[in-house]
Amino acid sequence: MTTGQHIIGFENSASGTETFHSYNPTTQQNNGYVFFKVTPEEVNAAVEKAATAFQFYRKKSGAEKADFLYAVAEELLNAGDELITVCCEESGLPKARIEGERMRTVNQLKMFAELLKEGSWVDARIDTALPERAPLPRPDIRFMHIAIGPVAVFGASNFPLAFSVAGGDTASALAAGCPVVVKAHPAHPATSALVGKAIKSAAEKTGMPDGVFSLLFDNGIDSGIQLVKHPFIKAVGFTGSYKAGKALFDAAVSRPVPIPVYAEMGSTNPVFILPQAMKERGAQIAAGYSAAVTLGVGQFCTNPGMLIHQNTGDDFPQLLKNEFEKTPGGVMLTPGILNAYNSGVAHHLAIDGVEKFALSPSGNASPDNWATPVLLKTDQSIFSNNPSLSEEVFGPTAMVVPVDSKEAMLDIANNLSGHLTATVHGTADELHEYKDLLDILEQKVGRVIINGFPTGVEVCSAMVHGGPFPSTTDSKTTSVGTAAIYRFTRPVCYQNMPQQMLPVELQDKNTLHIYRLINGENTNKDIN
Amino acid sequence: MTTGQHIIGFENSASGTETFHSYNPTTQQNNGYVFFKVTPEEVNAAVEKAATAFQFYRKKSGAEKADFLYAVAEELLNAGDELITVCCEESGLPKARIEGERMRTVNQLKMFAELLKEGSWVDARIDTALPERAPLPRPDIRFMHIAIGPVAVFGASNFPLAFSVAGGDTASALAAGCPVVVKAHPAHPATSALVGKAIKSAAEKTGMPDGVFSLLFDNGIDSGIQLVKHPFIKAVGFTGSYKAGKALFDAAVSRPVPIPVYAEMGSTNPVFILPQAMKERGAQIAAGYSAAVTLGVGQFCTNPGMLIHQNTGDDFPQLLKNEFEKTPGGVMLTPGILNAYNSGVAHHLAIDGVEKFALSPSGNASPDNWATPVLLKTDQSIFSNNPSLSEEVFGPTAMVVPVDSKEAMLDIANNLSGHLTATVHGTADELHEYKDLLDILEQKVGRVIINGFPTGVEVCSAMVHGGPFPSTTDSKTTSVGTAAIYRFTRPVCYQNMPQQMLPVELQDKNTLHIYRLINGENTNKDIN
Repeated sequence: MTTGQHIIGFENSASGTETFHSYNPTTQQNNGYVFFKVTPEEVNAAVEKAATAFQFYRKKSGAEKADFLYAVAEELLNAGDELITVCCEESGLPKARIEGERMRTVNQLKMFAELLKEGSWVDARIDTALPERAPLPRPDIRFMHIAIGPVAVFGASNFPLAFSVAGGDTASALAAGCPVVVKAHPAHPATSALVGKAIKSAAEKTGMPDGVFSLLFDNGIDSGIQLVKHPFIKAVGFTGSYKAGKALFDAAVSRPVPIPVYAEMGSTNPVFILPQAMKERGAQIAAGYSAAVTLGVGQFCTNPGMLIHQNTGDDFPQLLKNEFEKTPGGVMLTPGILNAYNSGVAHHLAIDGVEKFALSPSGNASPDNWATPVLLKTDQSIFSNNPSLSEEVFGPTAMVVPVDSKEAMLDIANNLSGHLTATVHGTADELHEYKDLLDILEQKVGRVIINGFPTGVEVCSAMVHGGPFPSTTDSKTTSVGTAAIYRFTRPVCYQNMPQQMLPVELQDKNTLHIYRLINGENTNKDIN
Repeated sequence: MTTGQHIIGFENSASGTETFHSYNPTTQQNNGYVFFKVTPEEVNAAVEKAATAFQFYRKKSGAEKADFLYAVAEELLNAGDELITVCCEESGLPKARIEGERMRTVNQLKMFAELLKEGSWVDARIDTALPERAPLPRPDIRFMHIAIGPVAVFGASNFPLAFSVAGGDTASALAAGCPVVVKAHPAHPATSALVGKAIKSAAEKTGMPDGVFSLLFDNGIDSGIQLVKHPFIKAVGFTGSYKAGKALFDAAVSRPVPIPVYAEMGSTNPVFILPQAMKERGAQIAAGYSAAVTLGVGQFCTNPGMLIHQNTGDDFPQLLKNEFEKTPGGVMLTPGILNAYNSGVAHHLAIDGVEKFALSPSGNASPDNWATPVLLKTDQSIFSNNPSLSEEVFGPTAMVVPVDSKEAMLDIANNLSGHLTATVHGTADELHEYKDLLDILEQKVGRVIINGFPTGVEVCSAMVHGGPFPSTTDSKTTSVGTAAIYRFTRPVCYQNMPQQMLPVELQDKNTLHIYRLINGENTNKDIN
């Protein structure tokens, strides 16, 4: 069903000799799919094609790029059940989850297509000439965002569709006008191949240039570093571990010409439960929290891996234990991820004063590759004295830290590193009372959630899926939502450029009817 | 007139023992002003005060921050003739230039104050809840930009007012809501002290927190590296040499928590003269170009240091030589800059095939510290084979490269590294004919100028004073114009936050009347 070959522009390629297998974590067998490891020459060919394609693709109109993205969405649907089946096989994730993830991926592509069709995203700014101004006349200056150049995208293990080959990084880079070279995640190469075929087909059908998209396979790291260091690559999108993301960042900033790396590396996503809310709806919070920690076998970067509540002597701890002990375990994405999960939990438990607080019953008769959810618990002094306890363990686990006072909560909040999200459960009154906690948290994260849970990242204009280091390598961006497009653009301005030579977005006649900032006024009118 | 002391929040400090002198490049004498070198403890004290102040300053309304910036502008005017006199003494620049630069600095502060008062800059985005949506309800999500934290700013040698203590970096960081710790440039410490006093006074008068601004003096580099490496510093603004800017960048990205460095490091700003324009108005272009190269003794990062024209056998070379030989030389900012200028010119002239094409008459009887404008010339093959010839020599010089064809122009354009600006002189018809040249240039620079010169950077909403590396360390930003504020902000979103707990910019009732993106619609209306 797959050729095992790389997609380099509109051609397939397999010039290497080494291969690797696609693996089924549920059966613990190799799937039937064999993939060639990409060669340095193939990496170079893909990037060179991307650089050539860039000169054509950057000139495509918003409507043309939108048609391309719509076509990708359609081809993903056309990939039908085969895509779902293969993706389930490779990820061990259930069918409903993968179907939902495909719909999310399709909708994300459509969201960027709509953004392009509307067109105002280019942030057009026009200051018209003031020839009579003293002491010096003002020239005519017009500003907009343009595409930055070819982008390298690294697929994520935990979202084989939504954060991989046709995921948010690819969709936003293509929307920006940048060709994309994807390195498929080796945990789901056959899924990646099907998605890559869909993008290639969409590019051909909508008249996009050869090289606007390439897809490379490798189960090693050298090709990724080669990509990031290639002089024609202008930015990098990545979702995955701190170790891998930081390695790409270090490679990118030490290039002769440094480039931005947008690495979303996950976080522990602290949850604070305020006393009155805990009292009023402890059971509901306990159930919701347990479900969020174990959803998708805990394999989300927004997994709420840290829970802080006050010791008020009520029954919340018991409720939490009861609810957590109802959660199911599951097959993890790869044996490597399961190993890391088990050793992360073991590391925490080896610290004196950390205890196993609640265990999923699935631990009793678990098959291999099966992760058993476990809730750990410690006290504030041990938590504060062991910074590693606040680091992410990727999987269905969390650290519960009961504390004695509001001040202790603030202290923990103040000592947080950067996270993607922070959550507070509280009644209306106590949220006011804890305004200082919220003030701290908004400085530590990209998204503050009230009375909810961080899993479930809405794809919309207002989303920030990002946060201060070490949750990402660039706190000033988001990897989900329409603002993600600006990761792959830069502003340029034109001074005294003749009308007909200007990009259509900046001409006097506003044929696109976009909003523009004209001499300080936000308007979609023409300039007369 | 100055105490020679550091300004640390609302206090003066001079706990060190080492001192340095302010120098007058015109008289080649030390001025009477003596400054203490900052100690590591003082650097730390300033940053700690900034971090404390941040918790108060970030909560100031747009109107309150605007009042502060207006007050800084007023205090700069109140500094009166003393500021002008001292600045002229320290820089060797003429009075009219410094008066103009003060007005530019004042207007820049007012521009950011107006931006804050209007308020839409926060890019508010609101996606309201869809509780009935299937399969999952959509939560209420609201997005805006918030301040990133304390910022370190490095004053520039060549703009003692507009790019220094109260310059664009400081103004945009303060506008964003970030306290600023400035390291004064050692070439104009007395000027910096007067400006620092004005900012401190404005902060006190408008009720800003102690620590919102500090000013440190040092004629070495250790304190600067200490600032950039300090864990409480969240971003860096810098204007100056490639060497210094790149060193700060390297220090910042190798921190345990990397931070962004916005270093504007200058460029050679190529100018392309197309044949028909050269024929029709060669004299005018020659005069304008000669003036731009030698303006301010060539000490601008937008100095047009590279001129490419086609050999059409007309009299443009002679016109250019005639015009350039009318230009005046001048006293450079520091002996170090003059030395670098002279050795840069000597380096180029040492390359076989590079010749002295035109010399300012000021070379004949120049005093010390005096730079003599010189136009160099070479041919395309020598230019292409010696990449160092396209590097900036800071001062009143430029490299003229006559070429044989349009293709040769395109070839030079394609081989350009990143620059702040590129300029093309052409008739309306030939600009169309050279559309491919313009397409290349917009990928190489932050600003494309038609039939003008790059010196003179308009302070406005549409300006991009930035460009691809090595002209800056972050091509995605600008250091001049209102968009400069986003260097010091990051987006955050609030999910299901109660109305009254939201920042005022994001509440249903739009009391600030700002433009917001509400469910995809750009509007300044309330949410009902």
